Amino acid sequence: MYRVSMTSNHPPAIVLLSGGLDSTTVLALARSDGFAVHALSFDYGQRHAVELGCASRQARKQGAKSHEIVDLSHLGALVRTASALVADADLEVPKDRNVERAHDIPATYVPARNTLFLSYALAWAEVIDAQSIYIGVNEIDYSGYPDCRPEFIRAFETLANLATRAGVSGRSLRIVAPLLDLAKHEIVRLGQTHGVDYADTVSCYDPSLDRDELPLACGRCDSCQLRRKGFAQAGVDDPTRYVR
Amino acid sequence: MYRVSMTSNHPPAIVLLSGGLDSTTVLALARSDGFAVHALSFDYGQRHAVELGCASRQARKQGAKSHEIVDLSHLGALVRTASALVADADLEVPKDRNVERAHDIPATYVPARNTLFLSYALAWAEVIDAQSIYIGVNEIDYSGYPDCRPEFIRAFETLANLATRAGVSGRSLRIVAPLLDLAKHEIVRLGQTHGVDYADTVSCYDPSLDRDELPLACGRCDSCQLRRKGFAQAGVDDPTRYVR
Repeated sequence: MYRVSMTSNHPPAIVLLSGGLDSTTVLALARSDGFAVHALSFDYGQRHAVELGCASRQARKQGAKSHEIVDLSHLGALVRTASALVADADLEVPKDRNVERAHDIPATYVPARNTLFLSYALAWAEVIDAQSIYIGVNEIDYSGYPDCRPEFIRAFETLANLATRAGVSGRSLRIVAPLLDLAKHEIVRLGQTHGVDYADTVSCYDPSLDRDELPLACGRCDSCQLRRKGFAQAGVDDPTRYVR
Repeated sequence: MYRVSMTSNHPPAIVLLSGGLDSTTVLALARSDGFAVHALSFDYGQRHAVELGCASRQARKQGAKSHEIVDLSHLGALVRTASALVADADLEVPKDRNVERAHDIPATYVPARNTLFLSYALAWAEVIDAQSIYIGVNEIDYSGYPDCRPEFIRAFETLANLATRAGVSGRSLRIVAPLLDLAKHEIVRLGQTHGVDYADTVSCYDPSLDRDELPLACGRCDSCQLRRKGFAQAGVDDPTRYVR
């Protein structure tokens, strides 16, 4: 989307940025770790592009050196009917289910999503010579997703170091997943200490826009339930606008 | 591109199909292994789409159950200047170099290409319930490419089994790379015994079309040199039309 000329001495890092609570927190952590951050987002036919708007604003607010949005709309054709998060899928986003007891793989799972996202990040990392890729996966809240587990992240890091020039040259690539074993309330507290503006993030699987084009969360999907509970447990005021 | 209704009892397998000599051979091998083959190709802004034409014709000729061409043209923006195989890159395809002595990573290397291709195949595999993904990588002829090594293939297989429902359910995904340790002349002989029509494949990094819209290979790039030598060593007539 935009590129700022690089004048700093900070080494580059890529941050996968959806515009949600987790990845926006990770963006702040990567900056705090001393990196010049390059944000990478994906348009894969999500039911609403609300989160991409948040991603763009967060990238600017947090001083990302560049922000690229990769068009994965063709992914819809390949995985049609396979996930409720793809706009033209036949599945419904589940609402009001008891997330405490849901241990199966959710309908909102997109096949190989994090593998694809990390693969694009890997390609970009080679081009801009980044040795760190940040991703906001979280095992605790998303235990149903196979590609949010620590063993998945480790396997991708191994792959990354075999797949690229970096691996051949002896340099190493790191996949950094700082939220992996944090509960939602811990993430919220961490983000708060780093000044993250959570009002401009969206976690809802089925968001809408009000007349001012501001995001409204449904308040009922798994993600809304986890987010709401996270702020409550953190003892932090929840700035999210929920429909109910 | 097209889908044929599945009426056979053969289990599905995905074959990464570029329209080149290697992947077209692999398509024949997957069929010979008893699979209903689903071909997957990518349009990533190659200098010429000649090979995609070959891929489409080969998929039909060899009775693929379906053939999907994924549009990766946006990849060009992300990896611009990084590879001579991307249409808008600044690099030239190297010609007339001594491929016997070229052990560096070639300019034709596309960052993370096979990682991306396999990731898409993985997503599709989940949707069509395929447990095998065939890929025509070859270590001997492409030793300069980090993502053509056996350790890369093994690492991706490990990742695939962690990244997906298949991995969680206890089923397993296989990445099948039957050409991995074959020399080009062995691949040519293998394909010949499986009836592969090599006249309708293209390996050239810089092909053109004649007035009949048929592919013409440059005869000078690394890939042409390896192909030509492969047919010669196999003692098989080379049906390729070379410019010189």
